[in-house]
Amino acid sequence: MIPKFKEAYKHLKVTTLAGGVGGAKLLIGLDKVLEPGQLTAIVNTGDDFLHFGLHISPDLDSVCYALAGLADQLHGWGRKDESWQVLEELRRIGAPDWFALGDRDLAWNLERTRLLSEGNTLTEVIAHFCEVFGIHTRVLPMCNEPAPTLIKTKEGEWLGFQDYFVRLKCQPEIAEIALLGNREVAESELVIQALQEADLIILAPSNPWVSIDPILALKGVRNLLQEKPVVAVSPIIQGNALKGPAAKMFSDLGIHPSSEAVRQHYEGILDGFIFDDLDLQDAANWQPSAIINESSQTIMKTDEEKIALAKAVISLGARILQGR
Amino acid sequence: MIPKFKEAYKHLKVTTLAGGVGGAKLLIGLDKVLEPGQLTAIVNTGDDFLHFGLHISPDLDSVCYALAGLADQLHGWGRKDESWQVLEELRRIGAPDWFALGDRDLAWNLERTRLLSEGNTLTEVIAHFCEVFGIHTRVLPMCNEPAPTLIKTKEGEWLGFQDYFVRLKCQPEIAEIALLGNREVAESELVIQALQEADLIILAPSNPWVSIDPILALKGVRNLLQEKPVVAVSPIIQGNALKGPAAKMFSDLGIHPSSEAVRQHYEGILDGFIFDDLDLQDAANWQPSAIINESSQTIMKTDEEKIALAKAVISLGARILQGR
Repeated sequence: MIPKFKEAYKHLKVTTLAGGVGGAKLLIGLDKVLEPGQLTAIVNTGDDFLHFGLHISPDLDSVCYALAGLADQLHGWGRKDESWQVLEELRRIGAPDWFALGDRDLAWNLERTRLLSEGNTLTEVIAHFCEVFGIHTRVLPMCNEPAPTLIKTKEGEWLGFQDYFVRLKCQPEIAEIALLGNREVAESELVIQALQEADLIILAPSNPWVSIDPILALKGVRNLLQEKPVVAVSPIIQGNALKGPAAKMFSDLGIHPSSEAVRQHYEGILDGFIFDDLDLQDAANWQPSAIINESSQTIMKTDEEKIALAKAVISLGARILQGR
Repeated sequence: MIPKFKEAYKHLKVTTLAGGVGGAKLLIGLDKVLEPGQLTAIVNTGDDFLHFGLHISPDLDSVCYALAGLADQLHGWGRKDESWQVLEELRRIGAPDWFALGDRDLAWNLERTRLLSEGNTLTEVIAHFCEVFGIHTRVLPMCNEPAPTLIKTKEGEWLGFQDYFVRLKCQPEIAEIALLGNREVAESELVIQALQEADLIILAPSNPWVSIDPILALKGVRNLLQEKPVVAVSPIIQGNALKGPAAKMFSDLGIHPSSEAVRQHYEGILDGFIFDDLDLQDAANWQPSAIINESSQTIMKTDEEKIALAKAVISLGARILQGR
């Protein structure tokens, strides 16, 4: 099956916008059904933060560890075969332990921080990581500058994203989300180029508010997407997110969480939309739209399921391309 | 023996200037023969450097680990019962591995960097460390600002100290040593206070050029030492240093390395000088001097040897005090 599929789409250039875990899973599928050179991942850096003086890039690392076959499948973050010597000692000396960095994960974060301090861009650092770990897919940080996603709680407090997400376990109710640290952030040239060169753009089943929106908020990105065939995969199934606070964010912001709400969220840039088979009944009642809907199994536990969803997304994208 | 000794000197306030390993050994002895509140260690920070974005303080950590009973006796640096998961991963990904940070050591360096980034001074951070590890001796960094020792090689290249010391294994010949990053550095208030309050000041058997000289170069320190009884312990035995490049530094700078050369190095601030029994024969030929010389066993392998040397230094200091 795959050789035929690969042959059929070997000239297709695909650029995928992604956050961490959910995005990483679809990227594994896409990486397996496309040849090196066909696939670029543009990854959210709105979650990046400084911790113990180190530059931490949770989504980039989730994507890279996944593509390198090094991801911890159980936790959904960090590395498999990990040890925790440093974290245990941090606990022993009373240091903050709410962000769990394993020893191997930490080594890579040390090296990233060192390379950045030597004047390399985050894009260059990630390219180095991909080389070291033999990753074929081109992985691009959405930008090189700091572009933190900030969360305003209903109590009026502004929180850094990891503070909200990891330390406070997404418990505060959200009043507002500010992207890119609330200022204009220069897009990375390679990001714009990857979007311009793409035949098909995929929005991975990542959190629309805090994984995909930061990328869309970069200057020029939304305009480019309006010109291109764009297919999104819903991260919401039966009103819930498989992982993370996407559904709660819809609710906090006064929107009933559903696949349809995801589709509406992306209104104006979307040509195709894949939602889970489990939402097929609901879909009968959705508002009419020019967006082509298609259902699929979107829960990706095995590599086969990742590959199947990747093929479904590419096939839908190709049909949209042909229809143009 | 010790209770009597403790009783005799219980009102003596002692401040010791020290570098890393050799200084730490004498401090263990002093810590054991003096009561909490009597002993302050002023520790060189000229070796401090940024590595992977972390603030590393080699001498402070050697002293603190030693006083906490956590030092690695075999290597003479780092922590005992250490693991090396992070370093192994750094090697695997091709990151610099010339400065070996163990996992537990690393945890403390992460926490120091975090506490500094939150606006704490290095003095406050080390006080916190002493509290966490139950250290009674007051340990003071010589200053809070960066004050790097720089090494100029005979090839004319300027090197950071750890570059010279660890990465290049002290191989380059030294033409010049620049202290405090070649600029004026504000002394720490607590350091000046500890010197003012001291009845006796001890120069530990640390490297005179790069461990003690940086402290002496701080504004006000040398003047204060001229007013106080000061006893030094020679780090040179039979023309060699037990550890580190002290002897080679004398040679590189055109001075024959010997205990007498150490005494001359401290000329003007010294009242008493302890050199090793092995140099007793040489001492007969030393230039006459007003400094009171005394020989002792200065090699400190066991706690008993550390205690014995500490008592010899304090006794000599007390005699000098009485003679005033």
